[in-house]
Amino acid sequence: MIQRKGTVLSSRNDIKVFDVTVRDGGLCNDFAFTDEFVRALYQANLKCGVDYMEFGYRADKRILEEARFGKWKFCREEDLRTIVGNNDTDLKIAVMADVGKCNYKADFLPKSESVIDMVRVACYADQIPTAIEMIEHLHALGYETACNIMAISKVGTAELSQALTLLCHSPVDVIYLVDSFGALYPENACQLSKLCIDAVKGTQKKIGFHAHNNQNLAFANTVETLSCGVSHLDATVQSLGRGAGNCALELLLGFLKNPKYSFLELLKFIETYIPALRAEGVCWGYDLQYMFTGLLNRHPREAIEFTAEKRGDYFEFYRSLLDYN
Amino acid sequence: MIQRKGTVLSSRNDIKVFDVTVRDGGLCNDFAFTDEFVRALYQANLKCGVDYMEFGYRADKRILEEARFGKWKFCREEDLRTIVGNNDTDLKIAVMADVGKCNYKADFLPKSESVIDMVRVACYADQIPTAIEMIEHLHALGYETACNIMAISKVGTAELSQALTLLCHSPVDVIYLVDSFGALYPENACQLSKLCIDAVKGTQKKIGFHAHNNQNLAFANTVETLSCGVSHLDATVQSLGRGAGNCALELLLGFLKNPKYSFLELLKFIETYIPALRAEGVCWGYDLQYMFTGLLNRHPREAIEFTAEKRGDYFEFYRSLLDYN
Repeated sequence: MIQRKGTVLSSRNDIKVFDVTVRDGGLCNDFAFTDEFVRALYQANLKCGVDYMEFGYRADKRILEEARFGKWKFCREEDLRTIVGNNDTDLKIAVMADVGKCNYKADFLPKSESVIDMVRVACYADQIPTAIEMIEHLHALGYETACNIMAISKVGTAELSQALTLLCHSPVDVIYLVDSFGALYPENACQLSKLCIDAVKGTQKKIGFHAHNNQNLAFANTVETLSCGVSHLDATVQSLGRGAGNCALELLLGFLKNPKYSFLELLKFIETYIPALRAEGVCWGYDLQYMFTGLLNRHPREAIEFTAEKRGDYFEFYRSLLDYN
Repeated sequence: MIQRKGTVLSSRNDIKVFDVTVRDGGLCNDFAFTDEFVRALYQANLKCGVDYMEFGYRADKRILEEARFGKWKFCREEDLRTIVGNNDTDLKIAVMADVGKCNYKADFLPKSESVIDMVRVACYADQIPTAIEMIEHLHALGYETACNIMAISKVGTAELSQALTLLCHSPVDVIYLVDSFGALYPENACQLSKLCIDAVKGTQKKIGFHAHNNQNLAFANTVETLSCGVSHLDATVQSLGRGAGNCALELLLGFLKNPKYSFLELLKFIETYIPALRAEGVCWGYDLQYMFTGLLNRHPREAIEFTAEKRGDYFEFYRSLLDYN
């Protein structure tokens, strides 16, 4: 039994909603969003009471060829400012930096010269020491920091406990559980959350959750971890995100009872921009192939290929997954 | 805090999976399924370890014009036997009878002459006395019986307690919570389930859950109520059902750990029959308009109209719902 924090009618001031549409959605279209799209989303997030907007990655240009990606793979300072100016708003700006794919010592200005508020360092559990080195550097520059532990459904309890101990001794502000494979059920997600919440007790650190919708549980897992005490919640407009996508921002805003949140302006954004994105061929969302990889607790890469090839032979595809399971 | 029954690795022998595809899905196409479709589904359910298959309604032909509907609105004995013969299998046959829309005294044979195993009586909470009269009659005829309390998200705790007391004194075998509006969150669904489980303690009665996917929580609510002790679980192939649809049978079978269950044959059924159904224009599944009616805890009828009209003006639609909320 896990102690719950609040009820479905609670309004908790510790909750922070992260719109990560451009960042996780960018994985569906190589970050080729127009400025108009990103600006309209920023404006909608402002009006909807969203707490943080993640604009993309700050990827290492020595590793990732600039011409192959839209600008939000790199989130240059000037590109961010084109959208947000000096961002004199309550909406904070985040970018993500992947361990091993970010030239973080060269590519981040001191916070006083940057419009970015938070850098979220994404890593696998075995990369935690490197992540902490990045976090220490970014913290010293003045940024809020998060550590997003990916593929959390593959991390054993002992390994997670060690990671949490290391992170508790670091300056990181938020520790995220990232269900990259959409493999968790609400019960699992709550157990992992509880482990994290207990580990950071007595510190100021917060716990976050980032869901994927492979088993159509992204929203459910998000509200269930929330009810177990998780405070930092990732979501994307219309679930836009890699493969089966993420927790839908509109569902999350509809659930939250704090009157600062509203999904009204988001509806206008959705009807204006999402059909066009679909028409361009950008493809995401729950389907059987993602259920299979979620159920088998593995990376969705084969399911993404199955989708791209517009295949419909689900039985044969599932059989083929079992061959390599 | 609600005591959980089992874990995600448990295999509970009390679990019964109901495929209600033809019955709830029939609300999307006026029950115009071909015999081939229904027979293939029956065969798939047999191979997948499904416990009950609900074929449709036994509707009152004095009230509902026969020519307007496919045969599964009426589930005549001879139509059932065309599909299942004498059903010499472990898969039990169910039909639904709505309070006020079923000529139950005239239209049911004694169980010894019928291929039907269970009759599920659907009613609103204020119709419980009539439902119990039907249940007593059907029980006396020899059928297993269930009472499916619809629009459960509109039923107050006091009213539900009274309903449960009445039902506990009836011969009903299973009491179902039906989240007709898809308005429940997992926490609500578990609280209601717990109320029912406590009420039937000391009897042989079982509790069931029937979800709708308006807020993309049908599967999540089903597994959460299961983990709270609910045993009888409704699902439909590919969520096929009115409006936003139901809990997907393939997701549920994927979740259950009892080795009797498998979704493999269902995949073949899905790839053969579901694309054709979509191509015919049969329309169901989660979308924003259903989220709105779920969130507002009301009947999805306006959302179904919005869908049928192929509208995409979500903001205006939501605004119009608030006018009459």
